[in-house]
Amino acid sequence: MSPRPPTSRPPWTATPKRRTMTESAAPPIGVGLLGFGGVGQSVYRTLAEQRDYYAARSGRAITVPRIAVRDRARSRTLSVDPGVLTDDALAIATDPALAVIVEVMGGVEPAITCIRAALEAGKHVVTANKEVMAIAGPELLELAYQRNVELLYEASVGGGIPIIAPLQRDLHANEVAAVQAIINGTTNFMLTAMAREGLTYEAALAEAQRRGYAEPDPTNDVDGTDAAYKLAILATLAFHVTVRPDDVYREGITQLTPKDFTYARRLGYIVRLVATARRAAGGLDVRVHPTLLPEDDPLAKVDGVLNAIAVEGNLIGRALFEGPGAGPAPTTSAVIADLLDIVRGIASGRRPRRPRPPSVEACIQPVGSLRMQYYLRALVRDRPGVLAEIGSALADNNISIASLLQMEADAVAGTAEIAITTHHAREADCDRFLAQAARLDAVVEQGIRLRIEDPWG
Amino acid sequence: MSPRPPTSRPPWTATPKRRTMTESAAPPIGVGLLGFGGVGQSVYRTLAEQRDYYAARSGRAITVPRIAVRDRARSRTLSVDPGVLTDDALAIATDPALAVIVEVMGGVEPAITCIRAALEAGKHVVTANKEVMAIAGPELLELAYQRNVELLYEASVGGGIPIIAPLQRDLHANEVAAVQAIINGTTNFMLTAMAREGLTYEAALAEAQRRGYAEPDPTNDVDGTDAAYKLAILATLAFHVTVRPDDVYREGITQLTPKDFTYARRLGYIVRLVATARRAAGGLDVRVHPTLLPEDDPLAKVDGVLNAIAVEGNLIGRALFEGPGAGPAPTTSAVIADLLDIVRGIASGRRPRRPRPPSVEACIQPVGSLRMQYYLRALVRDRPGVLAEIGSALADNNISIASLLQMEADAVAGTAEIAITTHHAREADCDRFLAQAARLDAVVEQGIRLRIEDPWG
Repeated sequence: MSPRPPTSRPPWTATPKRRTMTESAAPPIGVGLLGFGGVGQSVYRTLAEQRDYYAARSGRAITVPRIAVRDRARSRTLSVDPGVLTDDALAIATDPALAVIVEVMGGVEPAITCIRAALEAGKHVVTANKEVMAIAGPELLELAYQRNVELLYEASVGGGIPIIAPLQRDLHANEVAAVQAIINGTTNFMLTAMAREGLTYEAALAEAQRRGYAEPDPTNDVDGTDAAYKLAILATLAFHVTVRPDDVYREGITQLTPKDFTYARRLGYIVRLVATARRAAGGLDVRVHPTLLPEDDPLAKVDGVLNAIAVEGNLIGRALFEGPGAGPAPTTSAVIADLLDIVRGIASGRRPRRPRPPSVEACIQPVGSLRMQYYLRALVRDRPGVLAEIGSALADNNISIASLLQMEADAVAGTAEIAITTHHAREADCDRFLAQAARLDAVVEQGIRLRIEDPWG
Repeated sequence: MSPRPPTSRPPWTATPKRRTMTESAAPPIGVGLLGFGGVGQSVYRTLAEQRDYYAARSGRAITVPRIAVRDRARSRTLSVDPGVLTDDALAIATDPALAVIVEVMGGVEPAITCIRAALEAGKHVVTANKEVMAIAGPELLELAYQRNVELLYEASVGGGIPIIAPLQRDLHANEVAAVQAIINGTTNFMLTAMAREGLTYEAALAEAQRRGYAEPDPTNDVDGTDAAYKLAILATLAFHVTVRPDDVYREGITQLTPKDFTYARRLGYIVRLVATARRAAGGLDVRVHPTLLPEDDPLAKVDGVLNAIAVEGNLIGRALFEGPGAGPAPTTSAVIADLLDIVRGIASGRRPRRPRPPSVEACIQPVGSLRMQYYLRALVRDRPGVLAEIGSALADNNISIASLLQMEADAVAGTAEIAITTHHAREADCDRFLAQAARLDAVVEQGIRLRIEDPWG
């Protein structure tokens, strides 16, 4: 175990000379960059700073001669030769001098049109765009397959966390039973803050906006749309069927109140916005909603803006991938990994060999067929017989109580707050109970219904 | 968000017909299996059970016509045509009818000889063998590169957890700053049991053996050798230099006592056997030893036989990969993922394009150059002035105290147990202090010195 004597330079930065010598002769590979916001600038800067390192590792240097921006006149922190910038993204996508297009502009259009044009022009494409891949991914991947080029999208889910490639390759031997994920950092930050600091939804959102974790219009994050896009991408990969964003049942976090976090904690649960895709008897069960997780569940321990994706397979059991789910640097990590993969293929003269994308649309299980445990909160009259009335309505709908908390009695108003957890029950029965409870004299105000999940229990 | 009507069959099992039709015409790819213990039988059974599914996914069917066993006469739960079995592993490794060799026999020899022979015969190789890859990996990978065949080894570290491929590809854009891992399930199970149930080392080992988590001779697990092998493999990949098992400084868990877990917990720490590889000023810092981790550190939450690998890179920040680190089924997940990758390459006529393995040996930082916080436990005389004496010896060696617990005074013997945590100090200074403390009248018996790490703090 005696250490070797140190050499003159730190060895991890070393590049064996044999490779740079032989391979630097080939001309650099031209990359067109679509989008020059935070991610685009980070990708550009990293490619410039690490040019030699990446050339040595992938076999060819990379150059970025053209960048599409929304507004050429806008001033930027990163100074770029103005001749490189253009506002004609489509012209870059079809430029014969470019071998690869990196799309980091975001949004549905013109991104889809540009990616389609690039693939049709025989270019490889790297995209970080979850909306594009969720909405048009299956068609674009089929187009890439037909044209024998690559369309890689590791950055579209989970930021820099490797999850697309592991699902495509490393977990390939498994039949996947479920994917369960925290894939929206904005809401996870808010839920963590609401639990820890007792913030209201509004206060948590304001704090997330102040820190730049939430956009001025946070709708797509807080209503679960963003997570539904990402889940559609993951489920399509995991189950080899096409899952569309509209297939994903979704509920957002706007209904949650500080007391739900208090009650959940007292019942042994943590509230998270969980994206689930699971095989079920009636089809694929794909949904995004606030979920009560047992506090020792690995996903319950994922705090703040982190993302985590758990994959359950017949061989692996359960594997968990965790890391920063957003931000320019992590996204750059994934974008450049995809890019280097393509460059290595071009440099070695070995064409891609991706599997063909699925051609079968998913069969989706209706959410009413779910059988889960539920958390129900309501404001009820504080008088004898109320619990009997509610218990009887629950029993009428085949729902049995697992635990009950009665809290915050208001002597003046004559009301009390109750939180109930149920044993496993059918979602349709739960819906029927809620409709019935709304008409009960005992119930002053229905609060919220949340699903409880103990995925590995 | 309305669900599609269900189709007649569960879609995730569906294979688009176009692929099986066109591709099943080619003959199956012959695989030679070396080793038929738990993993070998699991691989064989899974390949048989999932034959059509894997053929559809990878483009060619797989057949396993030859299996090397240690003893042909031994009875097995899995019934195999006796003609398939042989005790001549080398004959399989060089059989011209086989395109791929899967080595799951374990141990150094004859595994290395067989893998070398297979590579020299132009065969692709998949191995789950950490010893082989740690000891001879660099040479075998160079041989594979020269012969233009693949040598894949995802299963050699972390069982089924994808970590080799993510380091090779998905985190490729990063300069890795550190890898920190719990990669020995046996010791992690023991440490978890010692912390939770107050077991002694001996009792925890007996429990691990009873459950089949520890071997009858547990030396390689409990002294850190197994983790050092795996760390050498990970560090070689992460830092693009050759790290040998002997480069890894290592300490095992045999010195730990139940009270160390009690004291650590009171000080806010969890004890784990952590494998660390990190860039440092003096070279690569690579070591395996029991470590006190802050209780909110992600690795501190990894309980039981689970494994987890954290990778810190300049772009990604920190990514964590967690899952089952051993066992036939998870290992099969990784072995078959590698195998399907190779099969897909053969089926599509596209040769591998792995990067060349590093040709530079790592420069290793001597462990004496470490600067860490330390936990020191000792039995001291229970009399005035003792702490002053110890404090003065610490100060003489540039070590300052962060916290001190005095516990378990023994009035009869006139002794007390103390546990000290220090601020950051040089390891060499700490060594000098320990030598000096051994001669102090105040110190009755030196207990243990453990390192404290707050890797992301």
